[in-house]
Amino acid sequence: MDIRPEDPTELPTRRRVRLLSRDDRLYHVILAQQFDRELIDHLCRIAEMTRIIADARAGARFLNTILSHKRAMLYFTQPSTRTFLSFAAACQVLGMAYNDVRDPTTSSEVKGETEDDTVRVLSQYFDCIIMRHPREGFAERMANRLNGMRRTIPLLNGGSGKDQHPTQAMLDVYTLYRCFAESLADRVRHDSERNLFEGKTIAFVGDLLRGRTVRSLTYLLARYPGVRLLFVAPKELQISEDIIEYLERNEIVHELKYDLPEVVGDCDAVYMTRLQDEHDKDGETKSIDLSRFSLTEELEPKLRRDLAILHPLPRRGELDTFYDEDPRAKYWDQMRNGMWMRAALIAYVFNVDSVILDHYHSYYNY
Amino acid sequence: MDIRPEDPTELPTRRRVRLLSRDDRLYHVILAQQFDRELIDHLCRIAEMTRIIADARAGARFLNTILSHKRAMLYFTQPSTRTFLSFAAACQVLGMAYNDVRDPTTSSEVKGETEDDTVRVLSQYFDCIIMRHPREGFAERMANRLNGMRRTIPLLNGGSGKDQHPTQAMLDVYTLYRCFAESLADRVRHDSERNLFEGKTIAFVGDLLRGRTVRSLTYLLARYPGVRLLFVAPKELQISEDIIEYLERNEIVHELKYDLPEVVGDCDAVYMTRLQDEHDKDGETKSIDLSRFSLTEELEPKLRRDLAILHPLPRRGELDTFYDEDPRAKYWDQMRNGMWMRAALIAYVFNVDSVILDHYHSYYNY
Amino acid sequence: MDIRPEDPTELPTRRRVRLLSRDDRLYHVILAQQFDRELIDHLCRIAEMTRIIADARAGARFLNTILSHKRAMLYFTQPSTRTFLSFAAACQVLGMAYNDVRDPTTSSEVKGETEDDTVRVLSQYFDCIIMRHPREGFAERMANRLNGMRRTIPLLNGGSGKDQHPTQAMLDVYTLYRCFAESLADRVRHDSERNLFEGKTIAFVGDLLRGRTVRSLTYLLARYPGVRLLFVAPKELQISEDIIEYLERNEIVHELKYDLPEVVGDCDAVYMTRLQDEHDKDGETKSIDLSRFSLTEELEPKLRRDLAILHPLPRRGELDTFYDEDPRAKYWDQMRNGMWMRAALIAYVFNVDSVILDHYHSYYNY
Repeated sequence: MDIRPEDPTELPTRRRVRLLSRDDRLYHVILAQQFDRELIDHLCRIAEMTRIIADARAGARFLNTILSHKRAMLYFTQPSTRTFLSFAAACQVLGMAYNDVRDPTTSSEVKGETEDDTVRVLSQYFDCIIMRHPREGFAERMANRLNGMRRTIPLLNGGSGKDQHPTQAMLDVYTLYRCFAESLADRVRHDSERNLFEGKTIAFVGDLLRGRTVRSLTYLLARYPGVRLLFVAPKELQISEDIIEYLERNEIVHELKYDLPEVVGDCDAVYMTRLQDEHDKDGETKSIDLSRFSLTEELEPKLRRDLAILHPLPRRGELDTFYDEDPRAKYWDQMRNGMWMRAALIAYVFNVDSVILDHYHSYYNY
Repeated sequence: MDIRPEDPTELPTRRRVRLLSRDDRLYHVILAQQFDRELIDHLCRIAEMTRIIADARAGARFLNTILSHKRAMLYFTQPSTRTFLSFAAACQVLGMAYNDVRDPTTSSEVKGETEDDTVRVLSQYFDCIIMRHPREGFAERMANRLNGMRRTIPLLNGGSGKDQHPTQAMLDVYTLYRCFAESLADRVRHDSERNLFEGKTIAFVGDLLRGRTVRSLTYLLARYPGVRLLFVAPKELQISEDIIEYLERNEIVHELKYDLPEVVGDCDAVYMTRLQDEHDKDGETKSIDLSRFSLTEELEPKLRRDLAILHPLPRRGELDTFYDEDPRAKYWDQMRNGMWMRAALIAYVFNVDSVILDHYHSYYNY
Repeated sequence: MDIRPEDPTELPTRRRVRLLSRDDRLYHVILAQQFDRELIDHLCRIAEMTRIIADARAGARFLNTILSHKRAMLYFTQPSTRTFLSFAAACQVLGMAYNDVRDPTTSSEVKGETEDDTVRVLSQYFDCIIMRHPREGFAERMANRLNGMRRTIPLLNGGSGKDQHPTQAMLDVYTLYRCFAESLADRVRHDSERNLFEGKTIAFVGDLLRGRTVRSLTYLLARYPGVRLLFVAPKELQISEDIIEYLERNEIVHELKYDLPEVVGDCDAVYMTRLQDEHDKDGETKSIDLSRFSLTEELEPKLRRDLAILHPLPRRGELDTFYDEDPRAKYWDQMRNGMWMRAALIAYVFNVDSVILDHYHSYYNY
């Protein structure tokens, strides 16, 4: 197995796909578990540098040239406007042309073709595939197929089935990373000893059972000893046992909680999530009372002044629009951070992250 | 109120959205009424310069770089292939990357999200939003929402509801401007005293009651004293009272007419429009006889040799294909003019219209 | 008639559209019959040079600039994901911006517009139209319409009705050309005497009656005396009489065969095709036994070591996945070759093929 788990037991044994390139860098990006702490920190720095460089006209134009010789395929047969647009914008930031397949019914599956063939055909026109698919494990299978081609290209998983959405987890970590770092200099500094999450309390709130976002993010935060995680959900929607066991194995402080007002004053960040009732078979969770799991206007006096409010969006009632123009609302930034993190990840996969790093150090000395 | 009406009474009082940038330039482009004569003339000159510059390979490549550091979102939840493509091509002319949301059913509204949230999320990935929406007043409401964000971006209205379609009106004015100017030099000359429309007779023909195109265009032409406007329509479809009052207030010569053959020989331009029977509740206008409101082959001997024939297209029977290859047919050019005008407008909003102007003066001495 | 048939009788008399530019180059690309041997060889060389140049980062970026001042419209009202993406990628290779109309229901036909008008409107925003349409002869009619405009732009046929798909035929020839040339130098060498297909045996296998691919490819291969063509199909699906007559008129060696295992050992190339049962009226061909017309694992010992296996894809059972990673499988390359050939063709139509040729000779001395 060639992925990089700190703890090999965390990966199902069926996973035998080679995911690294010859020089031992990540090649296919499939699982949140592939990211170790060094890589997470590195990508957060690259994302931050990309963001700063893009802010100046000349910088934006420089970024535009980095992958202008490459083309990406966005194969999104599971519809998702914002993940799609975030990846598309990330490609544009780096000047990479792209195209998309979004409606599975227009593809040649109607002529009886397997998706194994479709993906391999598409791989002929493009230099990487960014994929979102309703089936679990699909991205891995396709990475394996691509490995069998004379011309192999990298694959990035933009969400497959209900198990994995690694770039969402990475953008969430990056958002917290930006909130917890004290200064810009602090965010781009290379220091393998540093742990921005140490002593921070982060609450996950809402439907923790079925939101893959929280699951993936937990895997990444477990790389940072000293973080304290609160899981705040009604009993029926609490985080699943495997995550708890994983945290225990990694000695991460964590608590299960059943009331947001009780704990919110204690938090450095709250990560709100909506009820995922599209997974209901028969509307069985629609009647759950979520009033104790919502960030309402009434809670405002309890909030710390430096609290970071995150939400992967879309939201419903669990996050009051009252906070929309509050400086503590980080959920709009979170969307934009997704674009920068995805650009960083694409740059990394094409081995041009160093180009961004060098450019940054040439133009911004501090 | 921060828009620039010459006559403030022409704007409904509910309109309180700040539409200008700090240096008092138009920021959000929502209404035809925002354009005063100076700005119309300026944008026509910029559009004309863009057109000329783009004609040479080196010029086209220069234009390509002007907004290569920006990205646009084309949010077209009301389908419109040609307005969409015209804006998309305008973005491409300026080298601006773009992406689109065209099918509202693929958006995350299905997960219960409000459009207020959707538009604000999209605003995180892009540097401007070009919007077409079926609901009246929607563009203004969204401009207001964007003004509330820490990172505000401009919004251009590509048609909202049945009231406003300002860029269509601007491209129509530009088409007339090109027809009435005597030479290229005349079209790019800066002269705030000049009035190309003085003494010109322009007939609007067809369904004037329900076509927003004619309404918006009338607002713009009313900036030019000395123009003479004929409204040629069957009684049931004549121009509405508020437009007439507006023209009277602005002392613009205008006449209501009920027969095209009678007046066509007198016209410098005819602006043909189709029956808008999609607004019918019960097909009540389908039986109206439009034969006296059609530009047929039989009318050809009456037409002036320098007549300009315009039509926003699509057409039906009211404009005979007989004219398609006639030099007086300006309706094909009109489409292409839309691309140049939209490019000019986008350049203006991003404050790079001066870059086009400077380039033009460096390369083309007149 | 201004197309270039070697044998004028091969073109129906209804075809009167002017397809050449003033300097006698191909302007509109509509039919496989427009390509004579000199042009086929030239385009294969340009495609090959494009492929090689694109392989280096600097080369890819150079190609990116060639048509960066142009915009293409991909008018694909007949859905075809892979032909669409292949053309789109070809545009991107040359740095040409593009846009698309893919769903005819979103166009303004709903407002009662004719496609003659739609295509002419679109022509105003773009510099060429690449078109795929379900109706036979549609591309020619539109080329004629465009010829009537003051601003004429070239049209490339990406498949119209069941008769013509010239770029598919060209990419197939290019794939064979790459397989039969002995070296890279051999593939880019200019030699009007050379005939790479001389003495080669090529078998077409499967549904030859209804696949337009094989029909078009046969027209092109008939430019090369000395090639030997085998048509291997069940009786009900054999190649049609007009193709046989055409080959006889051109003195091309050809044989009808009814069993693949019998002839496969004799072939330099096999071109597999799937059953086109979407053309069935009542499933009448679904019961045909295709086991003798499939490239199965069992046939492997009979295959020549330098055999080239082609398939336009999508496939079904007629081509065993057993061959997918075999070096003789050229069907993945074939897809990628399509992108290079289409780029070559677009470059040719815009008269910048010489730019590619000059660049190649400056950087690669052989």
